[in-house]
Amino acid sequence: MNIELIMIGNELVSGEIADTNAFFMAGALTEKGFLVTGIVMVGDREEDIREALVRALGRAAAVIVSGGLGPTTDDLTTAAAAAAFGEKLVLHGEILDQIRMRFARAGLEMPRANEKQAVFPSAAEIIPNPVGTAPGFCLRSGGKLLFFLPGVPRELRHLFLETVLPRLESERKESLHYRSRVLKVFGLTESAIADRLREVDPSLFYAEISYLPRYPENHVKVVVRGVDPAEVEGNLAKIENAIREKLEGRIFATDRETLEEIVGRLLKERQATLAVAESCTGGLVAHRLTNVPGSSDYFERGLVTYSNQAKQDLLGVPGELLAKLGAVSAPVAEKMAEGVRLLSRSTLGLGITGIAGPGGGTPEKPVGTVFIALAGSDGTAVKGYRFWGDREQVKGITAQTALDWVRRYFLRNGIAGLRK
Amino acid sequence: MNIELIMIGNELVSGEIADTNAFFMAGALTEKGFLVTGIVMVGDREEDIREALVRALGRAAAVIVSGGLGPTTDDLTTAAAAAAFGEKLVLHGEILDQIRMRFARAGLEMPRANEKQAVFPSAAEIIPNPVGTAPGFCLRSGGKLLFFLPGVPRELRHLFLETVLPRLESERKESLHYRSRVLKVFGLTESAIADRLREVDPSLFYAEISYLPRYPENHVKVVVRGVDPAEVEGNLAKIENAIREKLEGRIFATDRETLEEIVGRLLKERQATLAVAESCTGGLVAHRLTNVPGSSDYFERGLVTYSNQAKQDLLGVPGELLAKLGAVSAPVAEKMAEGVRLLSRSTLGLGITGIAGPGGGTPEKPVGTVFIALAGSDGTAVKGYRFWGDREQVKGITAQTALDWVRRYFLRNGIAGLRK
Repeated sequence: MNIELIMIGNELVSGEIADTNAFFMAGALTEKGFLVTGIVMVGDREEDIREALVRALGRAAAVIVSGGLGPTTDDLTTAAAAAAFGEKLVLHGEILDQIRMRFARAGLEMPRANEKQAVFPSAAEIIPNPVGTAPGFCLRSGGKLLFFLPGVPRELRHLFLETVLPRLESERKESLHYRSRVLKVFGLTESAIADRLREVDPSLFYAEISYLPRYPENHVKVVVRGVDPAEVEGNLAKIENAIREKLEGRIFATDRETLEEIVGRLLKERQATLAVAESCTGGLVAHRLTNVPGSSDYFERGLVTYSNQAKQDLLGVPGELLAKLGAVSAPVAEKMAEGVRLLSRSTLGLGITGIAGPGGGTPEKPVGTVFIALAGSDGTAVKGYRFWGDREQVKGITAQTALDWVRRYFLRNGIAGLRK
Repeated sequence: MNIELIMIGNELVSGEIADTNAFFMAGALTEKGFLVTGIVMVGDREEDIREALVRALGRAAAVIVSGGLGPTTDDLTTAAAAAAFGEKLVLHGEILDQIRMRFARAGLEMPRANEKQAVFPSAAEIIPNPVGTAPGFCLRSGGKLLFFLPGVPRELRHLFLETVLPRLESERKESLHYRSRVLKVFGLTESAIADRLREVDPSLFYAEISYLPRYPENHVKVVVRGVDPAEVEGNLAKIENAIREKLEGRIFATDRETLEEIVGRLLKERQATLAVAESCTGGLVAHRLTNVPGSSDYFERGLVTYSNQAKQDLLGVPGELLAKLGAVSAPVAEKMAEGVRLLSRSTLGLGITGIAGPGGGTPEKPVGTVFIALAGSDGTAVKGYRFWGDREQVKGITAQTALDWVRRYFLRNGIAGLRK
């Protein structure tokens, strides 16, 4: 089943925003065995939208349109759709009430502009939007399907996954089965992964392997196709095992799981708690840990000790140590980890100190110099790194490395395993 | 001068790789005053490429094509271009020698497959590629220009900036000037902004207004065009003022500036310092503050006091208060702000407590209930909010609101101004 995507918005054709919606939908559709034959981006001009709609319908069995359903005057998709298919625009009172209620629940009065979002082409089937104000809609034209979705990525994803994708699957005639798995790797470059996987031949499993760099992670995606679901499942398991053997220990999560979720699960399973003392990451480790629902079960406190004074006051790092070796040193990282562990009475304490840049580097300790320490009842491990990148990248890879230490602590049985 | 971009590659339409080339070129072209009317992505199918070429030429004065110039059998752009314009393919011996030499310099023999990269449509003007093996080329058709560039981002950028952009500028007849400004708004919905701007008529200033939701911010972008640079500049200033009048106080930054940069600048200008005690935001405020280079000048420490024990230990929040009113209450937020301010000897102390969800809500205090307090030498202001959204959104909008409080503290002259 051939599908085309049309993305609408001046911000896309002017290079102001990089598209994420088409990328997301194309990936999800390909995974399910649909063939995306084209992606078109046009600005907020009714004529261009109309032309793109008519053209796409001439080429594909289904068209998914995103954007231009907002309340402002530059949102023209609904009008263009009605014009392209010769339909009238109709106000849906029920939808208008829902939008009004949405505002009322937040204690607000609905601005007049939002009325527009309750107007649809007469033949449209409305797709309710539980996560935003703009509902989507669906049109049928000559046996073909057109979906119109809001451009806000969160809303688009919700409506796409809940409504559009299931609908397309139910309309599809062919019965090819697809299964995919994303293996998330940290600590190996893309080409190092490719080198290690040279001996894994995907064709033996009717599979395709692709590489997706997601700094600081690298993801390996496997897609297996076939007619028999059990066989597809079996082939996926086999190739996943073959890949795992080659990358042992470097795969930290699969599919949608994040590193912070894995760390949280490991802590929870062992009824352990974690406290964090951060300097150069500036709260990013705490932020990532607390992105996980229920993290209060194992995350007790985080200290962002940016100044030397804070390191002394809050963690008991000796002033002489800071004066002699500087805040960015292995002993200070150790003291930070041990201090936060003891003071919070947590199972584990993480200490992070480094130079995120762009300033603060010296010839001996250039930007990117980082020390990470993990303290437990069985001792403290510490290690120095020299990361590469701008401020955001150094913060990012440092936080990732620190979280990965906690994961490896549990998998390698404690500090002794980390010291290896 | 209208321009269309055509991006070629199965990896783009299958959602395996997110486009960066079109995004880069669209931004650079828009900045120079060209109008990009459409971006089209198609897979490696000769017929689709041919059709996209012909269609784009019918709509735009110039077309830039990227991808499909590689050495492998799935690279079909050159053949498709020749077919579309009825031209023969010709081998250029000189280019072939250059490609061979490129391999030789790396101590390699040129694989046969690379011969293909020295073949071009007969009328093509070749664009040398000093940073890779695939040269680009240029065709003219009925007074219109077509550029073909390799898809490797580094090579594309080089050829685009060195050859394509200067050529387009020299061919352009109009000398249209173009200036833009992004006004970043927080605390008003997109439709509320549109309501307020109803009376600002952009056509009076030869301007266009567009709305870019960037949760939790809303951006208003103004683009002014004209022949006389001074007039364009003047019109931009006039419409910016008209918009500022309607949105007074809600615009916190312009263009590339972020809220944390503005807050940092305000603190620095006043030689003030800030300390933060976070509960529900879990370190996000500290993370954002420390994303700004040089933030150690004004950010001294951040405490992520996730547990009640941490709030007592680190901030001196009384245990009875926590027991009686719960951690999510105005008095606890006040104590957190005052505690972190006093203990860190900072000019300002920010206290944040709330329920990010999805668990932890009650009928009286549902998910999204948040209290923010700011303590200064002139007293403490505190306010309760009921935010809407998932965990990530509640964290995001709470951190944004808290940072905006610091901005408003300085603009409104202290706590008294915030209490209003």
